[in-house]
Amino acid sequence: MTPLLPEGFRDTLPPFADAASAVEARVLAVAHSHGYERADPPLAEFADGLGSRLKAGGLTDAVRFVDPVSQRTLAIRPDLTAQIARIAATRMGHHPRPVRLCYAGSVMKLRASQLAPARESRQIGCELVGLDSVAAACEIVGVAVEGLDAAGASGISVDFTLPDLVDTLAAGPLPVPVDRLAALRDRLDAKDAGAVAAIAPEYLPLIDAAGPFATAMDRLRAFDSGGVLASRLDGLATIAASLGDHAALTLDPTERHGFEYQSWLGFSLFVAGAAREVGRGGTYLVMHENGAEETATGFSLFADALVASAASVERRRLFLPLGTSAGDGAAMRAAGWVTVTALTAADTPQTQLATHLWVDGAARAL
Amino acid sequence: MTPLLPEGFRDTLPPFADAASAVEARVLAVAHSHGYERADPPLAEFADGLGSRLKAGGLTDAVRFVDPVSQRTLAIRPDLTAQIARIAATRMGHHPRPVRLCYAGSVMKLRASQLAPARESRQIGCELVGLDSVAAACEIVGVAVEGLDAAGASGISVDFTLPDLVDTLAAGPLPVPVDRLAALRDRLDAKDAGAVAAIAPEYLPLIDAAGPFATAMDRLRAFDSGGVLASRLDGLATIAASLGDHAALTLDPTERHGFEYQSWLGFSLFVAGAAREVGRGGTYLVMHENGAEETATGFSLFADALVASAASVERRRLFLPLGTSAGDGAAMRAAGWVTVTALTAADTPQTQLATHLWVDGAARAL
Repeated sequence: MTPLLPEGFRDTLPPFADAASAVEARVLAVAHSHGYERADPPLAEFADGLGSRLKAGGLTDAVRFVDPVSQRTLAIRPDLTAQIARIAATRMGHHPRPVRLCYAGSVMKLRASQLAPARESRQIGCELVGLDSVAAACEIVGVAVEGLDAAGASGISVDFTLPDLVDTLAAGPLPVPVDRLAALRDRLDAKDAGAVAAIAPEYLPLIDAAGPFATAMDRLRAFDSGGVLASRLDGLATIAASLGDHAALTLDPTERHGFEYQSWLGFSLFVAGAAREVGRGGTYLVMHENGAEETATGFSLFADALVASAASVERRRLFLPLGTSAGDGAAMRAAGWVTVTALTAADTPQTQLATHLWVDGAARAL
Repeated sequence: MTPLLPEGFRDTLPPFADAASAVEARVLAVAHSHGYERADPPLAEFADGLGSRLKAGGLTDAVRFVDPVSQRTLAIRPDLTAQIARIAATRMGHHPRPVRLCYAGSVMKLRASQLAPARESRQIGCELVGLDSVAAACEIVGVAVEGLDAAGASGISVDFTLPDLVDTLAAGPLPVPVDRLAALRDRLDAKDAGAVAAIAPEYLPLIDAAGPFATAMDRLRAFDSGGVLASRLDGLATIAASLGDHAALTLDPTERHGFEYQSWLGFSLFVAGAAREVGRGGTYLVMHENGAEETATGFSLFADALVASAASVERRRLFLPLGTSAGDGAAMRAAGWVTVTALTAADTPQTQLATHLWVDGAARAL
């Protein structure tokens, strides 16, 4: 039997599509309330332009096709942040900084990975362009956590990392030969103590400086006797304090995977019930057409992972039998009810998944 | 200079993307309140399966690509109703009828037309699967008009047509040779009296039976002396009455263009300020895998045309100067304000497009 849909693509059916839409609307409402205005780039762009703003190799996984109009190759976006960066750098390049933008849209990949088998998914996020300060990070992490909370998530946790930590140390108190730097970063990311000891044993304490936030911070401060990391660690402490008890915090200072293009700060977002991270963010650089680089801070949520973690969906539907007046139905909808109007004598509350029945001028629970 | 985006694709920037999103949410809220639950099909499907549910030639205008996983051709959807019909016929094929589904999503075309230069657009709609009765049409047209009203449209009008009118007459009281039927339909659609007179002069009165609803109905009733159209005309009268004064009504009984696949009823939706129709709908048939056909009624709105007609967007943003307490900001957001927090000493209400300033514990208009 031929499968109905290609691998990695799926229909979202009732009531889950409404639930997903509600989750997205709640996250965007939080972003909006903090001054983030929506930008909506197109699904397709010139492949070369889009590729120049994607991570290395990002275009390899994009769906591409030849545009009969321009005779150039277009790509369906595999990621939305590259497009938001383009908008901030070009069409909104002259807008006073910082620029606060939010977005929600579908992204598509030609090939899926084992960890992320979906080839189409929904990305929601906020980007604060023009700043990568501690204040900017406090706002961005705060909006992300508030958005997750508004979406109904529980058990929210934030795992921080310091993407340029090793580069900073290597350029300062703990020099490492340039040809061994990549290997060191990679082995620290993998928590491979043996290999790290062989490359640069003075970095070994970093492996133990991962875990619950307070403990990890203490270890990092002790490790940073020269104070080259002090501004970063003070910044982290400020961000952590700003979150109060809205999220559990952890710190994994040498985590690199997926943060290769972040600058001083990166973070992953987790919620109870989600099998994998539901979002990530950090500080980064936006490229302008003239070659200039601009600081920025942002986060993206992977809506599908988030929705999957949401509580079960409750339907509440009021069945209006044949002959119910239009005015009664309108009044109940205005009062917040979902009504289902009988259109034939065969329609019943049961076939229409109704939970309530309109009888004697009132909604009776079934 | 290289254009930033391919012809027919565009960025929607602040504040218009938020406005478009609000319009869509309001239409969907109306649909939801009438029991229409959201279905969200994927952007891409197997091209042959999708093509079998599109109008003839519909796949010609679709973006297609070879799927490296299945080695088959996939297509990006140029239309959403075909996917909703697929869902109703397959995955929800055993759901009791009628099934009420709504949707909102992006659709893409490889080539644009002069009348519709966008290659990506947003389609919103409702489909009532399992019925094409007058009661079904009353509900669908009513939800469409209520949705347009909720979206802020004014001057709503509905132009009805009777897509199978000529076939019905030709099969009954006014026979037309089969080989001249297509030409007759085409010339009536074009209001070409000379050509209609040459093909089948007894159809000429239909050309004058177009215009304001009441007059056109009177002329159609007079024309239909044998009563073969009586059930259709009674149905139209019922639908018109159900709309009350929520929309201006017109009737163009022989309009065919774009309604080739509708059965007894079709309609176009117009609003003040939109250069072209903002939606259309009607009754039609859904194909099942076993070859069976099922009646259905639905409408689609073209969100871009609708948003373009919406009133100008008002921003209302409260600037929180450096040092404003987090609690004050949260309280104002909880009260419905959009706040913009100063993150540097250089931030001003002006650069942040703020309309209000937080000063002395209150929002002062600027």
